[in-house]
Amino acid sequence: MDMRPGRGRRGILFVFTGASGVGKGSLRAAAADALRTVIYSVSATTRARRPAETDGVDYHFLERAEFERMIARGEFLEHASYVGDLYGTPAAPVDAALAAGRDVLLEIELAGARQVKAVRSEAVMIFIAPPSLAELERRLRGRGTDSEAKIQRRLERAREEIRALREFDYLIVNDRLEEAAETLRAVIAAERARAWRVVDDEIDAFLAS
Amino acid sequence: MDMRPGRGRRGILFVFTGASGVGKGSLRAAAADALRTVIYSVSATTRARRPAETDGVDYHFLERAEFERMIARGEFLEHASYVGDLYGTPAAPVDAALAAGRDVLLEIELAGARQVKAVRSEAVMIFIAPPSLAELERRLRGRGTDSEAKIQRRLERAREEIRALREFDYLIVNDRLEEAAETLRAVIAAERARAWRVVDDEIDAFLAS
Repeated sequence: MDMRPGRGRRGILFVFTGASGVGKGSLRAAAADALRTVIYSVSATTRARRPAETDGVDYHFLERAEFERMIARGEFLEHASYVGDLYGTPAAPVDAALAAGRDVLLEIELAGARQVKAVRSEAVMIFIAPPSLAELERRLRGRGTDSEAKIQRRLERAREEIRALREFDYLIVNDRLEEAAETLRAVIAAERARAWRVVDDEIDAFLAS
Repeated sequence: MDMRPGRGRRGILFVFTGASGVGKGSLRAAAADALRTVIYSVSATTRARRPAETDGVDYHFLERAEFERMIARGEFLEHASYVGDLYGTPAAPVDAALAAGRDVLLEIELAGARQVKAVRSEAVMIFIAPPSLAELERRLRGRGTDSEAKIQRRLERAREEIRALREFDYLIVNDRLEEAAETLRAVIAAERARAWRVVDDEIDAFLAS
């Protein structure tokens, strides 16, 4: 039985959610070997491109009028407004990749993750948590980028998120990075081994083998 | 958030099913590192102990009267008759281990796996398949222990089992042993990371951390 993607199977949509400071980027980097075969979805935004950013890599930078037209046409899997700018995940590239049997990873915050789950119920929801709120606070202060008020808002949001844990499929605690990366690799491999993903063509091919 | 087993969580019941000759024993051996923390459930049987076998290790060897009393009392998770002897999985040691937060692995054939799922719906059902029926036939002949008629019966059973694939949670194709062992490790790790297994005490402890 040929388990390789592309044998008539759809790809898997992974959604990655976790508080600011929890180390989502480090976790993706540590599990880069497993994520090599997963397409990282690039968000769209109306905010201005920063000098270090590349259009189409960091974000798809869109004019507000264009972004609003796409909202009106239902062309986002999720979108939100943040500090006056719009952010969102265009549906078309994600759906095209899934239809071609490629797995896709979206990294989005709780409200966006809920929007995605509402329209793509088969999404595999992964929650990344810090080992404790005290440790998250330490990491946020360590970054030295946020004001005290912003740190407190981020901690409050982390509390709200953990209360939503049961809406997710998996919890990965980012305590020791290598262990967390190992769990992420395991989630990806296990989801690919889910029996319900096997298509009839594969069973027929097996019975004829 | 402390993810270690024993923090008020129940253990996970893994059920391992696959055709004779598919290499379940080799797979368990290859994934012995991951299975170190999983209790392998020992079946009970009324058949005579063979010289190389140890009571309580290979099987619990029981008198038929005792076995039948246990059936009457509903003390088996599953049981079946095979070539005149009775085989079954006593519920008590499995349930005691799960209640203590230990994970348990049962290795049973399709009919028994269905009985277990009927009474323990949370069981994680893992189906082990050969890469093809031709390869299974080659392995069965390679063992040199079965008559031609028995090989044909085993192949027919393998066909029936694969048709029941959708009753299982995971499919592990035992083509290259090391890859199959890696998938088994992933399934165990991913199931331990399932968000629904997190108990309220863990969330409360996190919010107070």
